Amino acid sequence: MGKTILVETSARHVHVSEADLAILFGEGYTLTNKKDLSQPGQFACVEKITVVGPKGETKMSILGPTRGKTQVEVSLTDARSLGIKALIRESGDIEGTAGCKLVGPAGEVELSCGVIAAKRHIHMTSADAKEFGVQDKDVVSVKVDTADRSLTFGDVICRVSDSYALAMHIDTDEANAAAIAGPCQGEIIK
Amino acid sequence: MGKTILVETSARHVHVSEADLAILFGEGYTLTNKKDLSQPGQFACVEKITVVGPKGETKMSILGPTRGKTQVEVSLTDARSLGIKALIRESGDIEGTAGCKLVGPAGEVELSCGVIAAKRHIHMTSADAKEFGVQDKDVVSVKVDTADRSLTFGDVICRVSDSYALAMHIDTDEANAAAIAGPCQGEIIK
Repeated sequence: MGKTILVETSARHVHVSEADLAILFGEGYTLTNKKDLSQPGQFACVEKITVVGPKGETKMSILGPTRGKTQVEVSLTDARSLGIKALIRESGDIEGTAGCKLVGPAGEVELSCGVIAAKRHIHMTSADAKEFGVQDKDVVSVKVDTADRSLTFGDVICRVSDSYALAMHIDTDEANAAAIAGPCQGEIIK
Repeated sequence: MGKTILVETSARHVHVSEADLAILFGEGYTLTNKKDLSQPGQFACVEKITVVGPKGETKMSILGPTRGKTQVEVSLTDARSLGIKALIRESGDIEGTAGCKLVGPAGEVELSCGVIAAKRHIHMTSADAKEFGVQDKDVVSVKVDTADRSLTFGDVICRVSDSYALAMHIDTDEANAAAIAGPCQGEIIK
């Protein structure tokens, strides 16, 4: 086996724009870093908001820093509980996706779009990409060996930037389908 | 591609013993067939019960007919909501698994074990097995091609009996990890 990749599970979360943060938490509010994430500069926040769909609502953590557009990332199981049809999209590609209501302590935001199930992907630096023999936007498969539910994930997008750290991101449904519990390594299969 | 297999998604459900059915719904009660399932003789019931765990509770359908032992089948996402650690087991293999409380209209049952996440499996006849070149209890991989989340499921158990109909069964987490919506075919990869 060659070089392996840390496989990390992203639970449901929200990225907020500056403008929506001001509505949800009040003018001039800034996010509070609770814990740094594997990707440099990204962090889980103390702040939580409620995501409201036609069938249900769920409290979700905000991930910082703020972004250009507000985006809600859920698993397809979460989407079903909320009553929202989440399309599978790369982060940031939210045009034409479903919307929802966000409720914060200071106000509410009605999103016309932004609810997605994240397309599984690998963050890697250009040095990593060279080592794996892949390029930005390449689609690969990643094999994960577990005791009871080994899986090979197809349709995994490579995202190459020197501002990244090497890690594959999957959602909770995908982690459960592989019975991943805790730190786990995957192997690229082209 | 050779012969393919229908991949069916099992949502959370409960199988009940005669004794537990009598406690939950009353002495002499019989299950009501709502819909026949793909496996001959198996059916979804009109009856629902509430499964109670340390962290939450969920209403689940009963699948009939009654069985020797009561068993609750959940996804790992469901198990987390209930606060139960569900082991991944083949149906019927419940020794040492977690328990829960079941609440029906006539009474309650405290299970000492029986909550599992079903190990993915293929039901097949001996003729199917011959055609696939596999035997009962063989472990295979099954590839499912979808638009956004193609997957190859490893650790799939072949279960061979002439009382079965050819179908692979996965849970809702596994279906969501492959973005399976509606009827879907898989291909055995040995």
